[in-house]
Amino acid sequence: MSGSIYGTIFRVSTWGESHGKGLGVVVDGCPAGIPLTEGDIQKCLDRRKPGQNKFVTPRKEDDAVEILSGVFEGKTTGTPISMLVYNKCQRSADYSEIASYYRPGHADYTYNEKYGFRDYRGGGRSSGRETIGRVAAGAVAKKLLASLGIDIFAYSRKIGGIEIVEENFNREEILNNPVCMPDAKAAKKVEQLLEEKIKEHDSVGGVVECQITGIPSGIGEPVFEKLSANLGKAILSIGAVKGFEIGDGFAVADAFGSTNNDSFYYKEEGSKVLEKSSNHGGGIYGGISDGSEICFRAAVKPTPSIAKLQKTVNKEGKNIEVSIKGRHDPIIVPRAVVVVESMAAITVADMLLVSMSARMDKIAQFFGREQCFMEILNKEENL
Amino acid sequence: MSGSIYGTIFRVSTWGESHGKGLGVVVDGCPAGIPLTEGDIQKCLDRRKPGQNKFVTPRKEDDAVEILSGVFEGKTTGTPISMLVYNKCQRSADYSEIASYYRPGHADYTYNEKYGFRDYRGGGRSSGRETIGRVAAGAVAKKLLASLGIDIFAYSRKIGGIEIVEENFNREEILNNPVCMPDAKAAKKVEQLLEEKIKEHDSVGGVVECQITGIPSGIGEPVFEKLSANLGKAILSIGAVKGFEIGDGFAVADAFGSTNNDSFYYKEEGSKVLEKSSNHGGGIYGGISDGSEICFRAAVKPTPSIAKLQKTVNKEGKNIEVSIKGRHDPIIVPRAVVVVESMAAITVADMLLVSMSARMDKIAQFFGREQCFMEILNKEENL
Amino acid sequence: MSGSIYGTIFRVSTWGESHGKGLGVVVDGCPAGIPLTEGDIQKCLDRRKPGQNKFVTPRKEDDAVEILSGVFEGKTTGTPISMLVYNKCQRSADYSEIASYYRPGHADYTYNEKYGFRDYRGGGRSSGRETIGRVAAGAVAKKLLASLGIDIFAYSRKIGGIEIVEENFNREEILNNPVCMPDAKAAKKVEQLLEEKIKEHDSVGGVVECQITGIPSGIGEPVFEKLSANLGKAILSIGAVKGFEIGDGFAVADAFGSTNNDSFYYKEEGSKVLEKSSNHGGGIYGGISDGSEICFRAAVKPTPSIAKLQKTVNKEGKNIEVSIKGRHDPIIVPRAVVVVESMAAITVADMLLVSMSARMDKIAQFFGREQCFMEILNKEENL
Amino acid sequence: MSGSIYGTIFRVSTWGESHGKGLGVVVDGCPAGIPLTEGDIQKCLDRRKPGQNKFVTPRKEDDAVEILSGVFEGKTTGTPISMLVYNKCQRSADYSEIASYYRPGHADYTYNEKYGFRDYRGGGRSSGRETIGRVAAGAVAKKLLASLGIDIFAYSRKIGGIEIVEENFNREEILNNPVCMPDAKAAKKVEQLLEEKIKEHDSVGGVVECQITGIPSGIGEPVFEKLSANLGKAILSIGAVKGFEIGDGFAVADAFGSTNNDSFYYKEEGSKVLEKSSNHGGGIYGGISDGSEICFRAAVKPTPSIAKLQKTVNKEGKNIEVSIKGRHDPIIVPRAVVVVESMAAITVADMLLVSMSARMDKIAQFFGREQCFMEILNKEENL
Repeated sequence: MSGSIYGTIFRVSTWGESHGKGLGVVVDGCPAGIPLTEGDIQKCLDRRKPGQNKFVTPRKEDDAVEILSGVFEGKTTGTPISMLVYNKCQRSADYSEIASYYRPGHADYTYNEKYGFRDYRGGGRSSGRETIGRVAAGAVAKKLLASLGIDIFAYSRKIGGIEIVEENFNREEILNNPVCMPDAKAAKKVEQLLEEKIKEHDSVGGVVECQITGIPSGIGEPVFEKLSANLGKAILSIGAVKGFEIGDGFAVADAFGSTNNDSFYYKEEGSKVLEKSSNHGGGIYGGISDGSEICFRAAVKPTPSIAKLQKTVNKEGKNIEVSIKGRHDPIIVPRAVVVVESMAAITVADMLLVSMSARMDKIAQFFGREQCFMEILNKEENL
Repeated sequence: MSGSIYGTIFRVSTWGESHGKGLGVVVDGCPAGIPLTEGDIQKCLDRRKPGQNKFVTPRKEDDAVEILSGVFEGKTTGTPISMLVYNKCQRSADYSEIASYYRPGHADYTYNEKYGFRDYRGGGRSSGRETIGRVAAGAVAKKLLASLGIDIFAYSRKIGGIEIVEENFNREEILNNPVCMPDAKAAKKVEQLLEEKIKEHDSVGGVVECQITGIPSGIGEPVFEKLSANLGKAILSIGAVKGFEIGDGFAVADAFGSTNNDSFYYKEEGSKVLEKSSNHGGGIYGGISDGSEICFRAAVKPTPSIAKLQKTVNKEGKNIEVSIKGRHDPIIVPRAVVVVESMAAITVADMLLVSMSARMDKIAQFFGREQCFMEILNKEENL
Repeated sequence: MSGSIYGTIFRVSTWGESHGKGLGVVVDGCPAGIPLTEGDIQKCLDRRKPGQNKFVTPRKEDDAVEILSGVFEGKTTGTPISMLVYNKCQRSADYSEIASYYRPGHADYTYNEKYGFRDYRGGGRSSGRETIGRVAAGAVAKKLLASLGIDIFAYSRKIGGIEIVEENFNREEILNNPVCMPDAKAAKKVEQLLEEKIKEHDSVGGVVECQITGIPSGIGEPVFEKLSANLGKAILSIGAVKGFEIGDGFAVADAFGSTNNDSFYYKEEGSKVLEKSSNHGGGIYGGISDGSEICFRAAVKPTPSIAKLQKTVNKEGKNIEVSIKGRHDPIIVPRAVVVVESMAAITVADMLLVSMSARMDKIAQFFGREQCFMEILNKEENL
Repeated sequence: MSGSIYGTIFRVSTWGESHGKGLGVVVDGCPAGIPLTEGDIQKCLDRRKPGQNKFVTPRKEDDAVEILSGVFEGKTTGTPISMLVYNKCQRSADYSEIASYYRPGHADYTYNEKYGFRDYRGGGRSSGRETIGRVAAGAVAKKLLASLGIDIFAYSRKIGGIEIVEENFNREEILNNPVCMPDAKAAKKVEQLLEEKIKEHDSVGGVVECQITGIPSGIGEPVFEKLSANLGKAILSIGAVKGFEIGDGFAVADAFGSTNNDSFYYKEEGSKVLEKSSNHGGGIYGGISDGSEICFRAAVKPTPSIAKLQKTVNKEGKNIEVSIKGRHDPIIVPRAVVVVESMAAITVADMLLVSMSARMDKIAQFFGREQCFMEILNKEENL
């Protein structure tokens, strides 16, 4: 396999290269009856689109999505939803030189080793454009989750060492600034830093944070299919991500049991509404959601394509120096925000559907067969 | 699904509860012809065994493994390898009280929410004993990898804030001290800290680090099945792990493109042996191994079971205070080391077998059908 | 993979060789809360047990099953159910000669080709004893299905050319005669035939038929995961099965559209209870159950191990003649009946759980989030 | 899941409805380096295309395929191959009436039950046009198999009771007559029958037979993933197929062990080239290919859409009579031939790639690590 299919029930199959005819995705296993339009998808794709401001690549790409199947009279039909974005502005010529050498920080060498050759135009399948399929599928997953009152949103937490300040947090600000930070002041500082880095022909990294609210308890499976493990895989499968942490994450390494455990309490004794005094665990225990907010972070590396001179080798066996030309962002983080959101949405949607088979009483109820189940239960009790 | 099966080709199916009859694993898809004995498995299981020293639970458990199938005349046969460890020392009475309340920091509440009830004896399937199956399967995976010259080893990098010092690094030291650190001095300091924490009825967390050497290039798939993503999932599926990072990990967030990219060079120009001046990427680019060393880290939380008084709730709707009794370690990290190693081995073994189907020329060679393939290639060229 | 794991949600992982230490199965993904005892499993295993009468092998094997995990206080917990049967009476000596040659009609040669060598004792994993794991898992699946009012039963339809007569059909007779026929008269004739064949050192084949009643409509997926396709795979994966047909099966080849289509009608016009005038389709259309009875058949080959002299080759390169000694049935069919039932039950249980994610309205209801879904629906309608 | 993804390594994800914008497929896991052109795909698609002669629907559809990804400079790159066919001639109006009732012999009712509503235009996803994705993916699989010298071809064996005669068998004849029979005389008789049936507004069924030659031994896995079981699933997943048999198939039910076993012999004693005196098993033993020809058959039902008057019900609760109008073939069989071939090719390609991980000696050789493996082997032997 080439690893481009993800999920157990809600399954996503992405395809396409940076400079091929187009990119897209097939979503298999989306339930029937969800209202879905091309507008729902386009709204998400536009958030990852290049050419929006000075910090992202000046390529003009429409990235207009077409839904080719799986929707009838405005609703999903339960059959595969195929979505397609044609490549408009490919300019392959820009990349022709790259064929002869391996770019540092890129997958050129490893693709060559794996496949014996590679589609060298713009990184082929290892390009950031590969995420178009993820975002389109994520838009479908988000619609599914919204139908259940589940909300997922991400933002830049830190860029080039500049971190948001909790008291300035304003969710609406995320879509207002070019660096997708929920803190206008921090965003301003980051913009200044990026302008400097552009002049230095260099790039910076950062941290994306994601919150999931409204999730029912009981989602995620014990052992290998923990919700946290699958979120980790989903996020670590995004090109530039080098680290993932949930709840307190790496900070737990320096914590004590007495400070790291989340205590339960009832606001009103006798009620069944249990609350937690803290959320160090990030809303997941034993791999299963506890119904509170889930919070995780991803470390995103600096854009590897930089104009600054770098050492590398060519295929003829020579040591060379290169300056990567072309249209490249000095920062990946803001465009990764919607990708992180999408992968989280796909993962939660899939695990939520899987989790429906956990309990026989609920299954019997689902099929209207409670009475049969009661008979089995009573029969056994008489043994 | 309950999520207890892992892998695509080399597939591991674990089972068993802390206080049930036993625990075990079935390994499906292990190639035929690997020499394998119960001793190979036992050696690994003994590294996670409790009762070895003052910092791990004083339970005396043999955890003696039996191979029930899949091995004939000392070699794997290619059919499922079933391995079983009977529970010897269960003392269920210790845990009877736990049934009535939810332990902070544990999966008691989430299991209850998911399944409607739970096996409350020692955490049931959410117990650390669940890792017996992982370690037994990991031992098989390690034997497979050793047959190809691939070595995987892990160790405690940091415990309770005390970190190893690079210049003291000595691999052989790992098995010499009770905290599995490759630095004897750091280990001594940790031992002192743990004695303090035991007195305070508290516990500490830490970081496990793992290195993989000898891996061929080309292992791992692009997009969702990146080697890094699957290592992440595998490690994050271990009970107490809250974070995962590969290569420079979260440090990339503060790095620049110019410092974070790994440069290639040839020691001798004209040779084909390419080297890297650094390994910030951790041996994986675009999700695919580049043949150099892979290095990753996992954040492990403090043991949640502590004797210190904690607030929680019982099922009758009361707010209560509890002191968790029973036999608990003040630190999970040292026993997690072999589990991290095992999950990494299982993941690499699986992805390595999957990666054999990447190139038609090698496939044709594998089946002794190079000539057929050459004909197809030549026919096309003539078109 | 060695292919010993089956299913998507309700997943079965079998292991064990004919003459190894034992055989067993792990069932992953069984919902929590189903009453389950070792007696439930044993009842099914006893139906495939040898040594029951003159037509099955005179080996005395207890085949006593032990449940090792996944059941707590008499109910399934939602975690893996591990079941084990130790081999008692192996007499490996009987089979030592077989190591040197390939038995006609057996998998000796293909295992050798695939793995480079084989566990030659009693066929190893290709033995009929491999079905112990299937039957134990099938017993769990049947309990799950019974909880929903779904009933599955199979029987010998034809043996050695002798077929049951519809008017003699009596379900209770199936367990009364040694050939598992629901027609006492046909069973008598078969018994006479088998006695003859034993004298001739030969064996006969037959057809097993299976009926599934009480299944809800909507089970099975379009395209590749049709209920009929998965039943076919499940049944064709049983050792001696060489053909599978559903509904009218191969008879459709000679039918006309006008005779083969099943007409719908309402007994009472205006009611919603739709009925069919016939069931040529076997209860499945487009791969999805229509709620009526499902009926399929499997062709089972004659026992390949016969005492009659046969030509074959040995590994030293010689043409030889062999008479297979040991304890072999002159007919596989009656012992295959419970295996067919088990594989059908596992398949239906799995597809039924998968089918719960087909419709958003039902999913929203399942999670108690109908209102969120209504809001999404209404919002769209206003567009 | 909606079940539109098939395979373990070579994975096929189809999408599209009869009257949507188009239909297509994504092939994930095709090895890199196979020459592939749109012409290769089109050649196969043209064989299932309607409008070719008087016995298939007179719709004029180009069904022109576009490869959108996964091919670079004429060769597969190892990344997903996305293929698309736009729908040209949809005439939805023809089908509008169908929305109100359930066509007998179709999946209208079961889709409605499963999803709550359906895309009623031409059967939506249950239409025969769904097979476009299968055939396009099958063309890729066939190219892969051809690269290894494996050939797959199918043909109509029997239509409306008229069967081919072995001595008239001529493979080249298959593409010469409109009913895809390898026997010109039988084809003529079938043509006469079809003309009659068209006049009677009725339809007929038949049997497709498929042969696979050049397959290496050792393909297929024991237990659940038998090659025969997966071929069965693949073929039974085709819309109109109601039965599958391999080798002697249902005839084994009436055979004896002494006549049904295939004997091995050496033409020259001392040689290693083993032969079989017969092929009742159809080239597969224990689910694993023995290297000889594989032969299977599929029972295909008569076209359910007939102009003859039929009883059915409408959604308003009335019993009605309908005559299905529109463009329908009196026979499905000839167009199913290439679909059967395609599904067989996909299955064999997938299982062949999976089978590469069966033996450690070959794996070590594949990775150029024979020496490491020898060391492990020798170490054990010294124990």
